[in-house]
Amino acid sequence: MNNSLSIEEIFNLVRDTLNRAGSSSHQSEAVADTISRAERDGSVSHGLFRLPGYFASLKSGKVNPNPNPNLSQITKAVLKCDGDRSYAPLVHKKFLNNLVNVSKDIGVGILSINRVAHFASLWPETEILAENGLVGIACTSYMPAVAPFGASKKLYGTNPISFAWPRKNENPIVFDMATSSLALGDVQIAARDGHDLPIGTGIDKNGNDTTDPKKILEGMLLPFGGYKGSHFAMMIEFLAGPLVGETTSFITKENNINDGGPPLGGQFIMALAPEIISDLNDWDKNAEPFIEKLSSFDGVRIPGKRRHDNRNNIEKVEVNSELLNKIYSLK
Amino acid sequence: MNNSLSIEEIFNLVRDTLNRAGSSSHQSEAVADTISRAERDGSVSHGLFRLPGYFASLKSGKVNPNPNPNLSQITKAVLKCDGDRSYAPLVHKKFLNNLVNVSKDIGVGILSINRVAHFASLWPETEILAENGLVGIACTSYMPAVAPFGASKKLYGTNPISFAWPRKNENPIVFDMATSSLALGDVQIAARDGHDLPIGTGIDKNGNDTTDPKKILEGMLLPFGGYKGSHFAMMIEFLAGPLVGETTSFITKENNINDGGPPLGGQFIMALAPEIISDLNDWDKNAEPFIEKLSSFDGVRIPGKRRHDNRNNIEKVEVNSELLNKIYSLK
Repeated sequence: MNNSLSIEEIFNLVRDTLNRAGSSSHQSEAVADTISRAERDGSVSHGLFRLPGYFASLKSGKVNPNPNPNLSQITKAVLKCDGDRSYAPLVHKKFLNNLVNVSKDIGVGILSINRVAHFASLWPETEILAENGLVGIACTSYMPAVAPFGASKKLYGTNPISFAWPRKNENPIVFDMATSSLALGDVQIAARDGHDLPIGTGIDKNGNDTTDPKKILEGMLLPFGGYKGSHFAMMIEFLAGPLVGETTSFITKENNINDGGPPLGGQFIMALAPEIISDLNDWDKNAEPFIEKLSSFDGVRIPGKRRHDNRNNIEKVEVNSELLNKIYSLK
Repeated sequence: MNNSLSIEEIFNLVRDTLNRAGSSSHQSEAVADTISRAERDGSVSHGLFRLPGYFASLKSGKVNPNPNPNLSQITKAVLKCDGDRSYAPLVHKKFLNNLVNVSKDIGVGILSINRVAHFASLWPETEILAENGLVGIACTSYMPAVAPFGASKKLYGTNPISFAWPRKNENPIVFDMATSSLALGDVQIAARDGHDLPIGTGIDKNGNDTTDPKKILEGMLLPFGGYKGSHFAMMIEFLAGPLVGETTSFITKENNINDGGPPLGGQFIMALAPEIISDLNDWDKNAEPFIEKLSSFDGVRIPGKRRHDNRNNIEKVEVNSELLNKIYSLK
C-alpha cells in the first residue's frame, strides 16, 4: 500500500470518506481543509488520526450530515452562532470573516458558538484571525478527562486554548495547547505505539501515579503546571461553557451520545484589534523587538514556527499504514 | 510596639505615609484601599509589604504625586486611559465603572491602560467586575524576571493574570497568579525570612538550578508549568504591552527609573457580559452545577475562597515588626 500522500490526496481522502458517511460536500470540504492543513503542518494528532472519529459521529447521528449553521448579531461586538450540530470547521469557514469585520470595526469581537463537534486543533481559527491583523484567542472544553489539581476525579476536559499574535510582514506567533499535561490524542497515540509517558502526565483510576498511557486513558490526565494550570483549565470550562450558553464538560458528557468522539458543545472565539486598542497605527513597533529578542535566545522555540517551517517544506506525508487501512475500510 | 492593626488602621497608615511623600489624598486613598483590602484578605505579599516601594516611587519622581488620569472612548467597546504616571488603583477607582457600563451595553469591554505603576494584585479589579455580574480578566507585565522555557536569560516579567467568574448569589470565583513559578514578592519574602524554595522555582545568574531565594533574585525565576506556562507568560507580554500601546518588559526596563519598584507601564483589563454572550438570562444555570461539583472534591481549593473566608473573620492583622518600623521611618 502506498502510504505516502500529498496534501491534496489527504484533502480528497477526507472529503470522500465523509461524503461516503452522508455528509454534505460543503461540510466535508471544511473538515478536509482542516485535517489536510494539520497534516501539512506535522500536527499528526489532529490530522487523519481524527478521521475515524469524524466518521463515527456521522454514523451515530450526533453530527448533522447536512447542517445549516446560522449567525445572529447580538450587539455590535457579539456574534452568536448555532452550529446546528455541524463540525466546527464549517462554522469557521462560514463565519470567521464576520468576526474579522466586527473586530476591525469596534476593536474587539466575540464569536459565541453552540452545538458544534470540535475534533480539531484551534490554531486554524486563531491563525486566520492573526493573518487578518487581529489577535486571536479561542478555547473549547471537551468531556472530562482531567482531575482538578489536588483531586483524583475527572472534571475538566483537556480544554485547549489557542492564542495568535499578528505580525505585519511575518508569520503570526501562534500557540495552541491543551491545559492538560498532554493532549488526549497524544496519550492515545502513545497507547497505540506502546510508549511510556512521564510521571505527572496522569493518574490511574484509583488516583495513583502511572507512566502507562493505557492506565491514564482508563484513569485521568492531570492539568499541566500544578494548581496554576488547573486554574486555566477551570477558566476554559467557564469561557467555552456557561459564557457561550453551553454546559461544562461533566454535564456535556451526561448529554453525549457515546460514539467515541467529542460531544456537541460550544466554542469561544475572540478577536482583538491592536491598532484600535493601542490607538497606534504602528502598534507592531512595540512587539517586533520582543519577538526578535525571544528568537535570539538559545533553547527557545517560537510558538507556531515549527508548523510554519513544516508547511514550507512539505511535499508528501507518510501516513501510519494501520490508520490508512482503517480509513479505507470505514463504512 | 503594637504591631496588631485593624484594617482601618492599615488604611490610615498607608494614606498618611503616601500623603507624607507628597501624594494627593485622592491617590493615597485609592492605594490605601487596595493595600488594606490585601491585608484584610491575607495577601501579605501585596499588602503593607509593598508600601516602601510605593513611597520610593514618589520620592524618585517616577510616580506623579498629583496625577490626573483621563479616559477616552475609542469605540463603543474600547476605552483608553492615560494614567498620567499614577498608581494603577487610582485609575481603577476612577474608570472601572465606565468599563462596567460599556460591557453591560455591548457584551464586552476593554480598558487599555498606559503609564501607570502597578504594584498591587489584580484581583481587586477583576473582583469588582464580577461583583457587577461580569467576567473579569486582567493582566500586566513587569520588568524581566523570568527566563522563557528553555532559555537562561530573563525576558518575561512575572506577568500576573487574574480571572473572575460572577455568581448571582455567591462570592465570585477569582484567581490571580503570576505566570512565573512564584510571585516576585514571595521570593523576596523567602529571602528576607531565610526560607529555601523548591527546585524549579528559579535559576541562578549562570542558569543553574538553586533553592536559595537570594540566588534566584540575582538570577531569574522560571515560568510555571514548563513550556505551556511560558506560552502564557509570553501571551501576557503581548496583551499588557503592544496590544495596549506599551512596550514589553525588557524595553520597559531600559526606560525605567531604577528606584526598586515596578516601572511605569500598561495594563489590559477586559470585561465580558455572560448574559449577552450566552444570550440567556439564566446563564448561571450552566455554571453553578460545575462549581458545586468542584467544591465537593476532596483536596480542591476554590480560587478566591480563602481570601473571602479570611475577609469574613478578620479583626486585626499582625504586621511584621521590622516592616512596620521601616514604614514609620520612611521619609
